[in-house]
Amino acid sequence: MRNIRLVLEYDGTDYCGFQDQARPDRPTVQAKLEEALAKTVGERVRITAAGRTDAGVHALGQVVNFVSDTTIPIERIPVALNTRLPKDIAVIRADVVPIDFHARYWAKAKTYRYTWYTRPVLSPFYHRYVQHVPRPLDVPAMHRAAALFVGEHDFAAFRSAHGSTKTTVRHIYASTIERTGDLVHFTIEGSGFLYNMVRIMAGTLLEIGLGRRDIDSVKEALRLGDRELAGPTAPPHGLTLVSVAYDEV
Amino acid sequence: MRNIRLVLEYDGTDYCGFQDQARPDRPTVQAKLEEALAKTVGERVRITAAGRTDAGVHALGQVVNFVSDTTIPIERIPVALNTRLPKDIAVIRADVVPIDFHARYWAKAKTYRYTWYTRPVLSPFYHRYVQHVPRPLDVPAMHRAAALFVGEHDFAAFRSAHGSTKTTVRHIYASTIERTGDLVHFTIEGSGFLYNMVRIMAGTLLEIGLGRRDIDSVKEALRLGDRELAGPTAPPHGLTLVSVAYDEV
Repeated sequence: MRNIRLVLEYDGTDYCGFQDQARPDRPTVQAKLEEALAKTVGERVRITAAGRTDAGVHALGQVVNFVSDTTIPIERIPVALNTRLPKDIAVIRADVVPIDFHARYWAKAKTYRYTWYTRPVLSPFYHRYVQHVPRPLDVPAMHRAAALFVGEHDFAAFRSAHGSTKTTVRHIYASTIERTGDLVHFTIEGSGFLYNMVRIMAGTLLEIGLGRRDIDSVKEALRLGDRELAGPTAPPHGLTLVSVAYDEV
Repeated sequence: MRNIRLVLEYDGTDYCGFQDQARPDRPTVQAKLEEALAKTVGERVRITAAGRTDAGVHALGQVVNFVSDTTIPIERIPVALNTRLPKDIAVIRADVVPIDFHARYWAKAKTYRYTWYTRPVLSPFYHRYVQHVPRPLDVPAMHRAAALFVGEHDFAAFRSAHGSTKTTVRHIYASTIERTGDLVHFTIEGSGFLYNMVRIMAGTLLEIGLGRRDIDSVKEALRLGDRELAGPTAPPHGLTLVSVAYDEV
């Protein structure tokens, strides 16, 4: 019996999120992957993911694990799965991990990216992956505001009402805003994230970029922990789970 | 009456090419654009395109023109059309041109790009826009071969059997191969192109990149004009019409 870790990329546009909802009319990344796995290893397996991304959210480095008796050489697993997966999901790596490895509990850090597209006309090549904001953004102001998230803070103001974790304190290691042509990227790395946390941060930073909010309001939201003090939740399709970090195993 | 020029971007994946085929079950970019135009200007108009791209081929700078009595200010036309167009087609510019301007006949040069993706696993974010070649490519050899196309040559060997133009002589101004991470781009600018010419060039250059063909075979194909001496026609989805150049009007 081996515990196998996979790294996945997916375009989340056509999925109702990562997590299986046992509703065949609502395809999920998990259901597609478990279907391909069942055909590959010849048994029904249940996967565990590092981040349960919402409907429309993408991944460049989602991590999952599953336990199986399969004897397929580990290096053949990505190809075997990819031939059975739709083109918008790809397994880019597989390795064997300790039997008690858990993709979510063992994760040390996650990096997310939120992307805006600022050209007046939205590009047919980017519409799935960005929030379209056809206006100039004050990127330096957004960058200064993003930096306020770095460190250990109570992010209660940046949590969706649906969230239900014991503590709302998280450690953010890096938080930056960067422009590349017509794209503006918000990249954030942290120990973990509350429900909708990155999308609420993105909605708040966008208001700053549009001059509708000042930077001090972010300090206030962090200090008081009131969801009303943060901005709106940015739409899911601008969000990508970039990577998940673990200790060497 | 004004003659109006539009610059278009489109993701050609879901279209049976640019040109209308008067078959409603086979959507074309032209049909979608003429439909949006009819609603915008209130009359049925016929558009003329610089390049009639094939099914699956994309555009970053397709140019079309049409004649209309519409009095809509020219700067409002892109927005008016984009609200009526699907997300995979976008009008990025509009201007008024002389009444005898013709998008195809007046074109001085066109630039196309063909793209390969070389990582072992195809990316869910690129699969619509590249030919997947999961092997290392000899990019310097491809680049040297691509340079042989520059100048005025008879490209009879690089024309699909379906082509039917009077002369097969074309002038190529630039032809390069460049790698950017996992992507390898073939970019070519010329006075005009024969039917499938860029895709046959791409198929030939790929064979060189894979070590299956030597560079001199390109000279031979150009000299003898025999289609059998060139490589296969590369698939359409790797091809993009990047831009069309005109004299100032």
